Amino acid sequence: MIIDLYGFYMKKIIVLGAGMVGSAMAIDLAKYHDVTSVDRDEENLHKVEKYGIHTIKADLGFYENVHTLINGYDLVIGAVPGNMGYHVCEEVIKAGKDIVDISFFPEDLFGLDEIAKEKKVTAIVDCGVAPGMGNIILGYHNKRMDVEKFGCLVGGLPFKREKPFEYKAPFSPIDVLEEYTRPARYVENGHIITKPALSDAEYIEFEEVGTLEAFNTDGLRSLMYTMKIPNMKEKTLRYPGHIEYIKALKDSGFFDTEKMDINGVRISPMEFTSKILFDKWKLGEEEEEFTIMRVTIEGKENGEPKKYVYSLFDKYDKQTKTSSMARTTGYTATAVANLLLNGMFNRKGVIPPEFIGEEEECYNFIMAYLNDRNIKYNLTN
Amino acid sequence: MIIDLYGFYMKKIIVLGAGMVGSAMAIDLAKYHDVTSVDRDEENLHKVEKYGIHTIKADLGFYENVHTLINGYDLVIGAVPGNMGYHVCEEVIKAGKDIVDISFFPEDLFGLDEIAKEKKVTAIVDCGVAPGMGNIILGYHNKRMDVEKFGCLVGGLPFKREKPFEYKAPFSPIDVLEEYTRPARYVENGHIITKPALSDAEYIEFEEVGTLEAFNTDGLRSLMYTMKIPNMKEKTLRYPGHIEYIKALKDSGFFDTEKMDINGVRISPMEFTSKILFDKWKLGEEEEEFTIMRVTIEGKENGEPKKYVYSLFDKYDKQTKTSSMARTTGYTATAVANLLLNGMFNRKGVIPPEFIGEEEECYNFIMAYLNDRNIKYNLTN
Repeated sequence: MIIDLYGFYMKKIIVLGAGMVGSAMAIDLAKYHDVTSVDRDEENLHKVEKYGIHTIKADLGFYENVHTLINGYDLVIGAVPGNMGYHVCEEVIKAGKDIVDISFFPEDLFGLDEIAKEKKVTAIVDCGVAPGMGNIILGYHNKRMDVEKFGCLVGGLPFKREKPFEYKAPFSPIDVLEEYTRPARYVENGHIITKPALSDAEYIEFEEVGTLEAFNTDGLRSLMYTMKIPNMKEKTLRYPGHIEYIKALKDSGFFDTEKMDINGVRISPMEFTSKILFDKWKLGEEEEEFTIMRVTIEGKENGEPKKYVYSLFDKYDKQTKTSSMARTTGYTATAVANLLLNGMFNRKGVIPPEFIGEEEECYNFIMAYLNDRNIKYNLTN
Repeated sequence: MIIDLYGFYMKKIIVLGAGMVGSAMAIDLAKYHDVTSVDRDEENLHKVEKYGIHTIKADLGFYENVHTLINGYDLVIGAVPGNMGYHVCEEVIKAGKDIVDISFFPEDLFGLDEIAKEKKVTAIVDCGVAPGMGNIILGYHNKRMDVEKFGCLVGGLPFKREKPFEYKAPFSPIDVLEEYTRPARYVENGHIITKPALSDAEYIEFEEVGTLEAFNTDGLRSLMYTMKIPNMKEKTLRYPGHIEYIKALKDSGFFDTEKMDINGVRISPMEFTSKILFDKWKLGEEEEEFTIMRVTIEGKENGEPKKYVYSLFDKYDKQTKTSSMARTTGYTATAVANLLLNGMFNRKGVIPPEFIGEEEECYNFIMAYLNDRNIKYNLTN
């Protein structure tokens, strides 16, 4: 057994998915652990091999194979596309393995809680930057104060602004378009309010990049159920004007999911539109982008009004050619993976990130781990 | 033979096409003539029957039937969709019949000139408001002065402005979208300049409706070949912002004509987009719209600098439920039809409207005819 400078014991980790974030996580974990990456795409696997990572070519869409694949590993990292995430988690949990997942699947997070507890498994889900870090920060403060208001503004954007959309999608456009169509829920005075996606657009100033436009998206996820906070809101950030074009498409029916007849073939406008936008929104291999986030927590601490504002501005890493999206999402998950591996966190069941933030030692560990990787959540209050 | 108040002899006219403009022309002509409408759509025919118009149900897409259909009539009015126009005109000319056409077909106008002359036929094409009236006005002045500059701004718009496009298409969206993609040609200092469609956008004020946005479209048509005028430009008018959305679609590839693979089916973004916009842009049955046009002619007359500005602002006719687009386009054609029928114009060959405007008597007749129908080209100079 090898003990590194963090005091970790080297463990055997299997990372399911070697896409943009999956590969960044594997590379990060391989510094101190024995890592295996799984992907159906050989090119993705070639990219991580040079970091001493073992590779297995397999299509994780065949969920029944997951059980065999993960046999013998100490921890599973889930980094498959969102539509596969729930099924992969289910297989991992049933196999009695711990998992840290960043697939952001649309299914109910707690649907697997019972089986996870029964199997004595820790399944940490939604463990990225957003969802993820906002939850962790809120979890931390919520244990130490009476939070009245939580706000999270977050966006991943390219530095180069190309008209009309001034946007690049680090994942499939269809996932972004779904975020643009799903009704957005937030909490106001203790009530859940549902508004159309893209609503309540407002300009917000950021020192690092100037004016951005924030709008409602359905991003609170687990917080809606785990937190008794009267006001909670999550908004997505884009360059000003982006959502005006998106709204034009939406209002004209380009995002409709009902199939229509075109030359005798049935296809939905949504499928068509995401196909057209796929090339347009593709993030270039070495394209410089950034992640920007502002988490605001207000309430009473020791009877006094108190406000915490955390600001993140993280950029593409030119040296390692790692996107900011991969860094901020992936390194949150690898920090949490290490928490599990070194026994600092061992609550069982399906765990949303706010549960981890509640524990001060865990919270400090994550912040230090990210800070080591130059991901800084600057606190002003 | 009946002589009416205009001094016309009642003639037998056949109108090919009973759509929005075709039916308005049939109804107008039926006041003084014996009119027959042809359409493949029974509903269209029912609408004109009550005006004492004979009807024939036939699909004019079977061009070989045109010859038989028009047998026995004094004049043919062509009001078929643009993609059928050239073929229908060809059949009419070959049958030795005069025609006034508003189909605005994309093929070369003069391609049928030789056969028309040989058959001693008058085939007046592009005989609407734009193209049409701009040509007639320019033709008139060009005979009487040294024109240095011709400009035509024109648009048909709904009164009700609905975001995002604030537009309704009186014809199929695909025809509009093609106007938005075809490179636009204009004449500057005697040279033909080709620019992308939608280029050179500028705001222009109109007393009647406020600010509109003008942009280049390829609308000079025959004028590029028949007129030796050093500066000629045609621009289309829309509500401000319309073309920004259109450009966003265009720049993102929504108007691409190359077929792409969607779920194993090959379809072009253009086909798909026009299908989506079809419902969105459909002009309501009794929706109020207007036609706005500004024709500017500058040059030297009798050695002196001279400028003529003609302004048209025509609205939906609530009483007769006739759209302004049908009125301004159709009544130009019916005015010219009467010129032909009463022998005031008898030049042979394919005739663009500027040739008619050259003749003062014809010009005055058209202006009086339109004025009678409350379509007023107000002259300021």
